[in-house]
Amino acid sequence: MDFNSLTPELLVAFEAIVGPQHVLTAQRAEAAATADTYADYGRDHTEDLHFAPDVVLRPANAEEISQIVRLCHQHHIPVTPRGAGTGLSGGALPIHHGVVLSTERLNQIIQIDERNLQATVEPGVVNEAFQQAVQAVGLFYPPDPASKGSCFLGGNLAHSSGGPKAVKYGTTRDYVLNLQVVLPTGDIIWTAANTLKNSTGYNLTQLMVGSEGTLGIITKVVFRLLPYPKHNILMLVPFRQVTQAAEAVSAVFRAGIIPSGMEFMEREAIAWSSEYLKISLTLPEDIAAHLLIELDGQDLDELYKEAEQVYGVLEHYDVDEILLADNATQKDELWRIRRNIGNSVRYNSVYKEEDTVVPRAELPTLLSGVKEIGARYGFKSVCYGHAGDGNLHVNIIRGDLDDEMWNVGLRQPITEIFELCVKLGGTISGEHGIGLVQKGYIGIALPDTNLELMRGIKRVFDPHGILNPGKIF
Amino acid sequence: MDFNSLTPELLVAFEAIVGPQHVLTAQRAEAAATADTYADYGRDHTEDLHFAPDVVLRPANAEEISQIVRLCHQHHIPVTPRGAGTGLSGGALPIHHGVVLSTERLNQIIQIDERNLQATVEPGVVNEAFQQAVQAVGLFYPPDPASKGSCFLGGNLAHSSGGPKAVKYGTTRDYVLNLQVVLPTGDIIWTAANTLKNSTGYNLTQLMVGSEGTLGIITKVVFRLLPYPKHNILMLVPFRQVTQAAEAVSAVFRAGIIPSGMEFMEREAIAWSSEYLKISLTLPEDIAAHLLIELDGQDLDELYKEAEQVYGVLEHYDVDEILLADNATQKDELWRIRRNIGNSVRYNSVYKEEDTVVPRAELPTLLSGVKEIGARYGFKSVCYGHAGDGNLHVNIIRGDLDDEMWNVGLRQPITEIFELCVKLGGTISGEHGIGLVQKGYIGIALPDTNLELMRGIKRVFDPHGILNPGKIF
Repeated sequence: MDFNSLTPELLVAFEAIVGPQHVLTAQRAEAAATADTYADYGRDHTEDLHFAPDVVLRPANAEEISQIVRLCHQHHIPVTPRGAGTGLSGGALPIHHGVVLSTERLNQIIQIDERNLQATVEPGVVNEAFQQAVQAVGLFYPPDPASKGSCFLGGNLAHSSGGPKAVKYGTTRDYVLNLQVVLPTGDIIWTAANTLKNSTGYNLTQLMVGSEGTLGIITKVVFRLLPYPKHNILMLVPFRQVTQAAEAVSAVFRAGIIPSGMEFMEREAIAWSSEYLKISLTLPEDIAAHLLIELDGQDLDELYKEAEQVYGVLEHYDVDEILLADNATQKDELWRIRRNIGNSVRYNSVYKEEDTVVPRAELPTLLSGVKEIGARYGFKSVCYGHAGDGNLHVNIIRGDLDDEMWNVGLRQPITEIFELCVKLGGTISGEHGIGLVQKGYIGIALPDTNLELMRGIKRVFDPHGILNPGKIF
Repeated sequence: MDFNSLTPELLVAFEAIVGPQHVLTAQRAEAAATADTYADYGRDHTEDLHFAPDVVLRPANAEEISQIVRLCHQHHIPVTPRGAGTGLSGGALPIHHGVVLSTERLNQIIQIDERNLQATVEPGVVNEAFQQAVQAVGLFYPPDPASKGSCFLGGNLAHSSGGPKAVKYGTTRDYVLNLQVVLPTGDIIWTAANTLKNSTGYNLTQLMVGSEGTLGIITKVVFRLLPYPKHNILMLVPFRQVTQAAEAVSAVFRAGIIPSGMEFMEREAIAWSSEYLKISLTLPEDIAAHLLIELDGQDLDELYKEAEQVYGVLEHYDVDEILLADNATQKDELWRIRRNIGNSVRYNSVYKEEDTVVPRAELPTLLSGVKEIGARYGFKSVCYGHAGDGNLHVNIIRGDLDDEMWNVGLRQPITEIFELCVKLGGTISGEHGIGLVQKGYIGIALPDTNLELMRGIKRVFDPHGILNPGKIF
């Protein structure tokens, strides 16, 4: 795609649409001594990448976004939609410069409909703020990525984010009923209806979810909600053998139990994170990995019965003493450790994170494959993730790898890891998306015929290719 | 679209692909005295419609389908894929004649993967046969349309069929991980991976589900499964006021209970069906409607606790004695009554069925709206359906309406019913699809911009428009 550069006339037009205070440029930021804040619009949480936007726009609503996009469509200016910038695949990076369109001001919970167990929200609402708002009226929005304290719901929709509860409750995708979307031409549509079922035409809703801001800009969402589960139980289970931990995951499900969390953590993952958080945790030397298992429901007696069944399954494995967290502080602490693994790895070392996913029972094979590939290419990895979903986050640690190996040489072992995923019935991203950094690997997961269909769909929505160009494929 | 006619050369080519015994024509059927069977390939369960195919092909696998479709693509011959023909919107009717492609021979359950709680099946497997096969190994495939004893899984995918259990477990859509599809050009793809999560490119899987055979022919499906719920409880609740029955639906959910079934039946619905089945059922004169409420789970004590909570909710309404079905025979009988309402209505009268859906709490408003519109236009309707999903099947009874009113005059009141659905946040089909008979109404639910996107997607997949032409839009 050939794009045009911003013109002074367009800047004036943008000012007329969103107001001058919501049109940010490098020059203005420098004058106002906010250059750092401005630069952040060119970054996300993906490694150490930065691309400078020509202009950052902060519209207030769908109508303003529509006017902006219409202009950009007409003038062939790239538009990169941006949520909170917590993405891990570079999806929000303005690699072709142009406009960064921030959704930060679309941050209202418009309605919580208790009669219908639904809520209508804007994309700039922080995930956890939304969870808390619905919980206050006894309702439950399950998707809870590790970054829930800062990530936006719009970003969650862009990648169909998961989180620990996805194993029982599904990912973001499973809670969306209807989306208001500004198309790349500037038209505003609703994709569906506010109903639990819908067999009325093609599923534009699910096409938008996971399309990483390349097909449209989501400006309102109708989510379905659940009754809030009144009780939960949390167990931390230490294993002496890593592969046994991975095997036990599948065994729990086969026993008829669907935990609301089933997280796997290698020794280093839990050790680094608890150290990072300065939480003291006994970690006997022979412990190789942990499972963090949560059960939830409306009835505590029933949960204890289920917990006994889980204990029954775990008896067949070489586990140390199980920690049963039975108060809120202890539970919070364990979840904080789990959620901060990413941060602690980042604190300890430069790293690359791969978001591998396979059918649940193939996890032991994937894990030993990753270690074998690492040994062969001389890198260490810290692995953890949503084991109940077969979703393993592989953090490749830079350690003393040289620049050549880090920047170029790793492509081969990463390719081998992804090929292993696909061979096991899996794919290369479970919840982080393809964005920029996994784009080079998408051919491992999807043949040309699939990619051609996707490119065709992209052209239908975005004939000038202005929206988040250079991502996914 | 301009289509070409079948030629003798193409018939020969089809014979070479599938074998002569799987190439059926009217002429051959007449010669073999199987004209009735042949004519059935031009019908489904939608009203009294018939369109004659030029030829019926019964391929055995994806490769044969690919060869057939490639030829049809090349020669611009319409192809109408067909499952069991139980559809209620005319989706499988060959309105442009050409090829009817029956999936009846793709009827294998290829694998039930107990380790991963997944199964790989062909589209011509009967829904109930699949349910029973997975139940035999303790697993659960929830979607259960009323026609489950005869409908194919492929047809269920075409419309994202639901059924009573959708209220707790979702529709067909929610169980699909991966699809093997023959595209309208003859290419064979898998849409995704066999994983519970996937953020790798656009969601082609969910685009195929519900596309009513217009984007590709599904030849294999990977479904996720659940542990089979060990216990259930069924309650039949008689209400003296119809709108109270509809209101109670929402109240049960607000109390934090998610039933595995929550069916609404007007007095006539249950009366006609029990009479049709010759099941004697006490039906006091003042009873206007029933709710059939099912609870399921792994623990019977827990279910009885939930049942008490449901009773607590129902106390606030004017209900007669609740029948608690506590043995398999009684439960089966109640479910048979529910499932045979459609058949009994068909037995009693010519009718049209509308598959309205609204947010659950709007059901009372929809129901009184339907009755008011019926009163105004002089028709009677029998209403029933999946109240927990807000999905109301409105059966308009012919009674003594004249031909003019039946064939033309009803369009206006049906339009008004659909407009009411949309006004209430709903849409015109919850699970039956648009197919042929609702095509004229789709503009009520979806504006032109949405339809243009859908047409654009259709062109990407099917540049010659050969696959199930004339459906949806």
